[in-house]
Amino acid sequence: MMRNFKITVEYDGSAYGGWQRQDNRISIQQVLEEAIEKITGQKVAVIGSGRTDAGVHALNQVGSFRCATKLPANKIFMGMNSVLPPDIVIKKLEERADDFNALRDAKSKIYIYKILNRRLRPALGRNYSWHVRFPLDIGKMKKAAGYLPGTHDFSCFCATGTDVQSRVRTIMNIEITTGDDGLIEIKVESQGFLKYMVRNIIGTLVDVGRGKREPEEMKSIIESKNRNIAGVTAPACGLFLKEVKY
Amino acid sequence: MMRNFKITVEYDGSAYGGWQRQDNRISIQQVLEEAIEKITGQKVAVIGSGRTDAGVHALNQVGSFRCATKLPANKIFMGMNSVLPPDIVIKKLEERADDFNALRDAKSKIYIYKILNRRLRPALGRNYSWHVRFPLDIGKMKKAAGYLPGTHDFSCFCATGTDVQSRVRTIMNIEITTGDDGLIEIKVESQGFLKYMVRNIIGTLVDVGRGKREPEEMKSIIESKNRNIAGVTAPACGLFLKEVKY
Repeated sequence: MMRNFKITVEYDGSAYGGWQRQDNRISIQQVLEEAIEKITGQKVAVIGSGRTDAGVHALNQVGSFRCATKLPANKIFMGMNSVLPPDIVIKKLEERADDFNALRDAKSKIYIYKILNRRLRPALGRNYSWHVRFPLDIGKMKKAAGYLPGTHDFSCFCATGTDVQSRVRTIMNIEITTGDDGLIEIKVESQGFLKYMVRNIIGTLVDVGRGKREPEEMKSIIESKNRNIAGVTAPACGLFLKEVKY
Repeated sequence: MMRNFKITVEYDGSAYGGWQRQDNRISIQQVLEEAIEKITGQKVAVIGSGRTDAGVHALNQVGSFRCATKLPANKIFMGMNSVLPPDIVIKKLEERADDFNALRDAKSKIYIYKILNRRLRPALGRNYSWHVRFPLDIGKMKKAAGYLPGTHDFSCFCATGTDVQSRVRTIMNIEITTGDDGLIEIKVESQGFLKYMVRNIIGTLVDVGRGKREPEEMKSIIESKNRNIAGVTAPACGLFLKEVKY
């Protein structure tokens, strides 16, 4: 009998070509599917709540898969964690009704982006933040971020050549907080994200923080719908998928 | 003319055999001395405020070295950072009076130990904490820690076979705080530390947190002066040298 499972996954994306299966690099999806096959003997397809790019991390990525196994959920959970590599761990595995789909049913996602804003490169945690050496004006970045919440055509933050029907998305919330030793955390919640959207938003906010642009320009950048007007794509290593809401 | 320098160093200890030069593994000290030689052309000996064990990290380790160079301090600073590997960075380099010695002049040191207390192993930051899967009672750990401050013979926490004149040390302060997702941080300040002292204290506090010992036993453990009575040595990867005071 076919059963349907929801998994919550933490991973360090440093060594992977991203979530999505691909020919030339190992992906999170492939490693998860191989682990499920080892434990259940079944070939399955794991559906992610969305793709994460090469080098992006996840605290709680969500996936779903259908599998004709008789093993209790807890056995699959423990079995998977015993065969998965040290940089991937299943935090939760639950059996769900047949119609649950991790991609289609996701209501919103929260990403965290970490910037280390100090003159010197970090020796510790090098794969877990973007090192920005120019001093950043947090007040200006917060002001610029204030233009983002709401429903907009976010073409300006979408990787060029992306094939999607609509580039309209709804950002519910964006929060910027500061921590010790130059750490800046930016939390973005949206009903959906376009390719590179968070990283392109961060690149643009950093331009504002450095004084290369005024906070008010954020409005015209969005209105331009032109990727060339916005800032650079921030590096993948600073990005963490924090939560998927259903 | 011989000049005297003080350096403040951040390092990720994961790939090193510790601070101290040794035959079979590369050390932080060796890498620093080689970097100084590359930049100044001078062979020097770097004196650390103390040794850190293999795998232990530092946010602000302090060293001193005497060197007959004419280069301005800032040139040495930038030069060293350009030749050091990504897991070591000089945060500060200052010229000091001839009698400054990073080891002899250290007044106290602050270490931080990070425990990740949750059922599941971490995928992210695996080299930066001790994963303890048994639930820990923080209240009991704080109570046990309360017996540590003051001047005591800490033989019970000193690696066996350590050749030192006295095992009396003064712990000024110990603080236990909790963070997100099972993170526990333990901060210890002492006028000096014996070999493995912090890690043996942590191992004993974890025994108390797990309920294997009562908080009050900490008193008799210290009084025993017997290493076999105290708990296991906690892993190196959770330990960070945070600050050296002069």
